[in-house]
Amino acid sequence: MTVARTICLGFLAVITVGTLFLMMPFATSNGNWNDPIVALFTATSAVCVTGLAVVDTGTDFSFWGQLTILILIQIGGLGYMTISTFLILILGRRFDLRQKMAIQESFDRPLLQGSQNLIRSILSMTLIFEIAGIFLLLSVFIPQYGWNFGLWSAIFHSISAWNNAGFSLFSDSVVQYQSSFLVNLVIPGLIIFGGIGYQVIIELYLWFVSILKRDRRKYLFSLNFKVVTSTTLFLLILGTIAFFFTELRNPNTLASLSFQDKLLAAWFQSATTRTAGFNTIDLGGMTAAAIFITMGFMLIGASPSGTGGGIKTTTIRIIAQSTYSILRGKEEVVLYSRTVPSSLILKAIAVVFGSVTTIVIATILIALTDTDFDFIQIFFEVVSAFATVGLSLGITASLSAAGKLVLIPVMYIGRVGVLLFMATILGESRPSVIKYPEENLLVG
Amino acid sequence: MTVARTICLGFLAVITVGTLFLMMPFATSNGNWNDPIVALFTATSAVCVTGLAVVDTGTDFSFWGQLTILILIQIGGLGYMTISTFLILILGRRFDLRQKMAIQESFDRPLLQGSQNLIRSILSMTLIFEIAGIFLLLSVFIPQYGWNFGLWSAIFHSISAWNNAGFSLFSDSVVQYQSSFLVNLVIPGLIIFGGIGYQVIIELYLWFVSILKRDRRKYLFSLNFKVVTSTTLFLLILGTIAFFFTELRNPNTLASLSFQDKLLAAWFQSATTRTAGFNTIDLGGMTAAAIFITMGFMLIGASPSGTGGGIKTTTIRIIAQSTYSILRGKEEVVLYSRTVPSSLILKAIAVVFGSVTTIVIATILIALTDTDFDFIQIFFEVVSAFATVGLSLGITASLSAAGKLVLIPVMYIGRVGVLLFMATILGESRPSVIKYPEENLLVG
Ligand SMILES: [K+]
Ligand SMILES: [K+]
Repeated sequence: MTVARTICLGFLAVITVGTLFLMMPFATSNGNWNDPIVALFTATSAVCVTGLAVVDTGTDFSFWGQLTILILIQIGGLGYMTISTFLILILGRRFDLRQKMAIQESFDRPLLQGSQNLIRSILSMTLIFEIAGIFLLLSVFIPQYGWNFGLWSAIFHSISAWNNAGFSLFSDSVVQYQSSFLVNLVIPGLIIFGGIGYQVIIELYLWFVSILKRDRRKYLFSLNFKVVTSTTLFLLILGTIAFFFTELRNPNTLASLSFQDKLLAAWFQSATTRTAGFNTIDLGGMTAAAIFITMGFMLIGASPSGTGGGIKTTTIRIIAQSTYSILRGKEEVVLYSRTVPSSLILKAIAVVFGSVTTIVIATILIALTDTDFDFIQIFFEVVSAFATVGLSLGITASLSAAGKLVLIPVMYIGRVGVLLFMATILGESRPSVIKYPEENLLVG
Repeated sequence: MTVARTICLGFLAVITVGTLFLMMPFATSNGNWNDPIVALFTATSAVCVTGLAVVDTGTDFSFWGQLTILILIQIGGLGYMTISTFLILILGRRFDLRQKMAIQESFDRPLLQGSQNLIRSILSMTLIFEIAGIFLLLSVFIPQYGWNFGLWSAIFHSISAWNNAGFSLFSDSVVQYQSSFLVNLVIPGLIIFGGIGYQVIIELYLWFVSILKRDRRKYLFSLNFKVVTSTTLFLLILGTIAFFFTELRNPNTLASLSFQDKLLAAWFQSATTRTAGFNTIDLGGMTAAAIFITMGFMLIGASPSGTGGGIKTTTIRIIAQSTYSILRGKEEVVLYSRTVPSSLILKAIAVVFGSVTTIVIATILIALTDTDFDFIQIFFEVVSAFATVGLSLGITASLSAAGKLVLIPVMYIGRVGVLLFMATILGESRPSVIKYPEENLLVG
């Protein structure tokens, strides 16, 4: 079995088990058996760290239901490969060479030698950030809710934010903390570091260590680090500016807030839109311009090897740089004095083409099954599901069963990755040795 | 001056002259001076063969105004380079080497040796198709309107269809000919051959000649021919099926028609959507699914070197084939036993990236200037303007002056070509000889 197929089936298995758990009477707040579609949708949304919800997580699920969702989020966020590698590790089994290659291929990088170190660092990183998030959030939630629900809320929202899941126990997401400086720092902080990819964090750590040790050699960041951090920073600032100015005079969102709160809300929206799915302003009240901008940021998404979705920052950067190169008459794409291999350019094309095709087909299908909604509501919902964002213009719960059944594979494909999914469908190919001559073609 | 700049300025010059003509009292049906924005918008729409109209071409413009529009369409359709080359030819001036290179570069192909032959064959092709179209349309229009207006309608619609302009003298476009077999054959025929590119027609002609001469050697079609014809055919059939099934039960469009008329209307819509801009069904009455499908087809558009717009059939084919290649683990993109050069892949990326960026920015701007319209109406209008299609959900005339002033450069960029436009903005670049090492990056 190929690695691609293993990952696809692994996600499916976790979703199936999650659905069964969420159907049980102990998972619902009223003690009845849950609707299978609600359970399937919620389990998929949790495992795919999407955050779209057909029922109110805080009131319709019991504590045990919420705990199940949180565990599914954690499994989905860490990723099937990390989890299974970890299980094999703690079971004490040695890796055979084929498994090692599979793991390395799925992580797609040579920086860390040895899968055991890799898994260990991912897990410790996750624990450190999530525990830090819980402690910081406690100072807001305990005064408000007391120890019991305060602690549970801090745990739930910290894990949900780090994994870019977007599930919230509050029915209005975190709109009530619109002006809370701490919440506007901690949740976007968890979102950004969770979505930036573990490799970037490891490099940051190694750089920090080299400074502490007063190492005289200059620490060399990888191309991946430079591209991811600069693109992420650029998008965060661009998003803050865009939301600030498009919503500035909108009475439903920013108009009534103080200047500082306006900035905080625009910043929060910029951070959360790119894959997390929390919100501190009412999305349904946003201007059409801001909704469209939101869709663009959702589609771009987070960075590879992180907990986020979308086509990823590196993909959009390769596309932008390719455009710049050909306009300058160059045939090579150069980023930070490194040539981007042509296979990566093809990969970037495939990611964008596969993503757009998935979104277009799903949008058309839901437009056919659910004719009562505005087109923009459906389009927004599909982009949000595909990019595992979880923001919604409010139609998730009222979608027809058919509409929900279209969104479920969209969330799934968005999470396992459109390339991996398509590769699984196509199966393995035989290598070809035929070389064909080049011929020109008119373009554009 | 670079070729790119020459073409950009040439289009601007024609638009300026056209605007002045359309402002004159002789151009309007009421004999008053025309509103400058109306004149500028109409001239741009005509020169860019877009077809978006802020006033009713048939009633608000006089015969002289309509003639001006038709001449602008013809100039725009043939393209600035063809026209200027032709002018130099008939003025008897010899080309110097630099001009020759500029012309060849702008036509981007080696098949026809010598610019004079090239221009001559483009002009005769245009004349043959347009005159054939006029004669065929006469048999429908003269019985209905008599000789005077019948002849004028046949001339106007034949030229408008061949140049994929979409301007019509009838206020409901050609909805009244929904069931006319002849109109459903002639207008889509002109649209398709006008939009397929002159090179494809020349190759068809040469192939036909080789058959007539009973040439024993098999005629070898170019890669461009194979890609353009197969993609065009595929899209035409896909569009017919898509419109047929999404609109089948829609009482505002196909539901009340006979089976044959349903097929005719779906076929007409499939042919016209990809850049021409005529319609035989009411666009505003279409389902959300069909509107979204329309937007997709508009964006893909026609083929290079034809009269149509959009990102072009060759671009989408390269993107699709690149996706397939990388999924099969290949690093080379092969079409019909020919390797696609990597510079073409970068060009395809640049066309898509530039197009999407233009559309996104324009949509956000109009969403800010015209807050009364539905988002989908604005998005549709911008895609239609950029791909020089000219279909509208009915908001063109009611857009604010600011909104119209945003659409004008969108039509312009869509027509001169987003690559050419961006190249002009960036200016010439110095060649670089530095080779950078490759480094991997995580994608998707
Ligand atoms: K999410
Ligand atoms: K048109």
